[in-house]
Amino acid sequence: MTKLTSAAAWQNLTCHQIEMAGTSLNDLFAADPSRFDRFHAGIAGLLYDYSRTHITDETRDLLLELARATKVEKERDRMFRGDAINTSENRAVLHTALRRPIAGTVLVNGHNVMPDIATVLQQMADFSDLVRDGTWCGYAGDKITDVVNIGIGGSDLGPVMVTAALAPHHDGPRVHFVSNVDGAHIDGVLKNLNPATTLFLIASKTFTTQETMANAAVARDWLLASAVKRTAIAQHFVALSTNADAVTVFGIDPANMFPFWDWVGGRYSVWSAIGLSICLAIGFDKFRAFLNGAQAADDHFQSAPLEQNIPVLMALVGIWYRNFWGASTVAVLPYDQRLARFPAYLQQLDMESNGKSVDRDGNGVDYVTGPIVFGEPGTNGQHSFYQLIHQGTHLIPCEFLSVIHPDHAYVDLHQKLLANALAQPQALMTGQTLEQAQGDPARVFTGNRPSTMMMMNRLDPHTLGQLVALYEHKVFVQGIIWNLNSFDQPGVELGKTLATTLLKNWESGAPDADSSTKGLLAAIKRGGVR
Amino acid sequence: MTKLTSAAAWQNLTCHQIEMAGTSLNDLFAADPSRFDRFHAGIAGLLYDYSRTHITDETRDLLLELARATKVEKERDRMFRGDAINTSENRAVLHTALRRPIAGTVLVNGHNVMPDIATVLQQMADFSDLVRDGTWCGYAGDKITDVVNIGIGGSDLGPVMVTAALAPHHDGPRVHFVSNVDGAHIDGVLKNLNPATTLFLIASKTFTTQETMANAAVARDWLLASAVKRTAIAQHFVALSTNADAVTVFGIDPANMFPFWDWVGGRYSVWSAIGLSICLAIGFDKFRAFLNGAQAADDHFQSAPLEQNIPVLMALVGIWYRNFWGASTVAVLPYDQRLARFPAYLQQLDMESNGKSVDRDGNGVDYVTGPIVFGEPGTNGQHSFYQLIHQGTHLIPCEFLSVIHPDHAYVDLHQKLLANALAQPQALMTGQTLEQAQGDPARVFTGNRPSTMMMMNRLDPHTLGQLVALYEHKVFVQGIIWNLNSFDQPGVELGKTLATTLLKNWESGAPDADSSTKGLLAAIKRGGVR
Repeated sequence: MTKLTSAAAWQNLTCHQIEMAGTSLNDLFAADPSRFDRFHAGIAGLLYDYSRTHITDETRDLLLELARATKVEKERDRMFRGDAINTSENRAVLHTALRRPIAGTVLVNGHNVMPDIATVLQQMADFSDLVRDGTWCGYAGDKITDVVNIGIGGSDLGPVMVTAALAPHHDGPRVHFVSNVDGAHIDGVLKNLNPATTLFLIASKTFTTQETMANAAVARDWLLASAVKRTAIAQHFVALSTNADAVTVFGIDPANMFPFWDWVGGRYSVWSAIGLSICLAIGFDKFRAFLNGAQAADDHFQSAPLEQNIPVLMALVGIWYRNFWGASTVAVLPYDQRLARFPAYLQQLDMESNGKSVDRDGNGVDYVTGPIVFGEPGTNGQHSFYQLIHQGTHLIPCEFLSVIHPDHAYVDLHQKLLANALAQPQALMTGQTLEQAQGDPARVFTGNRPSTMMMMNRLDPHTLGQLVALYEHKVFVQGIIWNLNSFDQPGVELGKTLATTLLKNWESGAPDADSSTKGLLAAIKRGGVR
Repeated sequence: MTKLTSAAAWQNLTCHQIEMAGTSLNDLFAADPSRFDRFHAGIAGLLYDYSRTHITDETRDLLLELARATKVEKERDRMFRGDAINTSENRAVLHTALRRPIAGTVLVNGHNVMPDIATVLQQMADFSDLVRDGTWCGYAGDKITDVVNIGIGGSDLGPVMVTAALAPHHDGPRVHFVSNVDGAHIDGVLKNLNPATTLFLIASKTFTTQETMANAAVARDWLLASAVKRTAIAQHFVALSTNADAVTVFGIDPANMFPFWDWVGGRYSVWSAIGLSICLAIGFDKFRAFLNGAQAADDHFQSAPLEQNIPVLMALVGIWYRNFWGASTVAVLPYDQRLARFPAYLQQLDMESNGKSVDRDGNGVDYVTGPIVFGEPGTNGQHSFYQLIHQGTHLIPCEFLSVIHPDHAYVDLHQKLLANALAQPQALMTGQTLEQAQGDPARVFTGNRPSTMMMMNRLDPHTLGQLVALYEHKVFVQGIIWNLNSFDQPGVELGKTLATTLLKNWESGAPDADSSTKGLLAAIKRGGVR
């Protein structure tokens, strides 16, 4: 047994689950009219309701005991302090420094990183102002109308999600995103754009990411087909990178390289120079508001007592269902169309951080780790996969999100949206008996299906910053409890290596590979499966 | 025990799984150089490789025995014949008739539906020609430049997925989609459009779907704010519906109502009048090619021996991992950016069809049913959740999809894309030992993770039709084996009812509801969570 599963807190929870398995959510609510009051927590403009989970005072105490036993608070403080908690890469994990008040001090190996952060933020502010006010021109002297961010993974998902979420705040150039090495992606984007008015952001820390560099080369050719002069590259390309040499060779002015640091992981990089497309779309002041929101969540995470600490509570609800009730997945269900890509963002944040089987001590785990995250916006999902959530054979903890004030004038639609956002958790919990279903077994809902609700006053930059940071810290807490290094991603390497090998052996038909690889490659090479 | 779990075939598979659990995919390939040849199947232009699954000749025999024991062939024939296999609603299930050669005969309660289908297809062809060639004009005499499909669930996901997949074939007006009752959705679409050149398709069989009718009303107001005259409605709105009275009251000319029938389920309706947005985007001839592709898959499903029958094999691979290996989810991983919404489409098709716990005889099941479907396009997912697929604690059968010939000129990018599409299944299977990882346990890949590959020559209308129909039949076969009615969706009703109740009790604060509903509603009504 590992340290975790042999801990008293863990074993107490195992026993406690057996008791709780016989208790329904309906019973918990019936027994306590103040249940909602006692099982929600909040920070300014945001409320987290976890009353519709199989958690009593005792459960919460036991879960908090687990958090304390696994030293969540101590590890949290180590992260904020800049300790090298990413042990496999011997790096600090300091995305939280990116959103701190600049006046502070954060030391990495004795060096205060706050002035470095301030410099890059100023560079982002200056540059986005120049582009947005038309001072920055394309090769023919035109104002930039379109920005294309070329990046993948963390260099894509954050800006994609945030710019979509904050669409009502856009007042700069249109922003587009190219991530996939599939040429259909860049082809579809470029065909609607004018090279003379398009600015490319090449987002790759190392400036060697296969997909990103291949797409950047296509974009450069596309520009030069119109601009002809190679000097145009410097007017139409900037880099979000740290590799000044490679950036220069590409043709970008190193003055237009926006750096970040090895203590910013890809999936935590939206707060860094990777956020430049956001600045261009909504302006630096609103980007700063987004950072400030995250900072407010950081403060809360650092200072709120654990029993009122939203990311800690989110993490513990997750652990409770994942490890003690056997749930494999989490459904993320934003009742806001602007958050359509939030589930995809969380897939990376959560599954890349905690989708691991070896603990920080190098031992195999004897417990399950990170869940599979999926979801689509409500009400859309109600007309799709909710059938399975309500009546399928899975236990799926659902994370609902909703926003009280819309940024549009359709009051009637918004009321309907919110009514649905409240009714679905209610339906999942209450169910419908055979009698209520008038004897039709197919219309029985067993109910007793858990969910949480994150309710926000507005989806503005500040609140979105809070929301994302709360989820970051949730994932962090779960990683600590599971004794994982949540900050590396060794599982992405093997596929990369094999793809490179395959490209080398393409012409020869990969004779040493297995018969499936060989057979499929042969079909590709002869131009058809038959 | 139910009929299913007491069947000899089921029990044999249970025993056989115990044997197979000790066999690795690497061993299976090492033992048989012809494994790929023996474990793939094909139809024109499409290959299904299931060699990277824990299936031997014996496994396949046992799975086929299960299919036979559950009368898959007989039920298939009943579906195609028009029997009322949707027993809860006493309806035939005849989306296959929509793509049949018109000359045929398909009887529903003694009535041949083929002439009805031919009439609507002709109506769709005529109308889309008129709009595409500019004969059909808006209220100010302008050609239609933009089409907005307003629908949700099956009236949205199919057209969204297909128009995205066939983007290189678009030569008609731009198409847009509004589904969510969240006003942010329609607000974001309308703000870029001109009422004088915009055509709305209101897609709701009953013309009562809450979300769709609310959005349609917004669209009508938006039009009339410019057009003023109410007669403009008939020039800018058509209906995909069967409710002529409601359509007329709305202001639509009943001649511009495109009907379909009660034997077309929402999630199978892309082949019906619901496909009108597709016709408008790519022209009727290509829509017909899409139908023909599906028809080719229908022929294959009806005539191929079970051991070569792709949807049957897909279904059995799924059953094998879901019921005998305990997999909760299926990852759908298209290596084609144009298929970005294919996983969302399959979420509805699969999870709404088979996310059920009561069998066709009204008994609770004692086995697990439909899996949770999730996915994003490769290579994007590689930089996100693949970490968990490779090294997490889940068994996740992966369904890869790839396309040999792109519709763009970026040959180098496409080769990289395909190399990754081949390398990922290889990496999942082969893994990496502690020795290969130079003693670093975090870099160990256990391997032995199963996947399948659907490889297509081109992503054209015909092949896309095949692909979608194969998945439809896969879901059908699984539903038959699980003894489910895959054609109703009783699980969506309770939430709808409770939302209606909540809207009625909005002003009073829903005093009879549980404390969570009351507490959240109170926050909404006072305009803030604090």
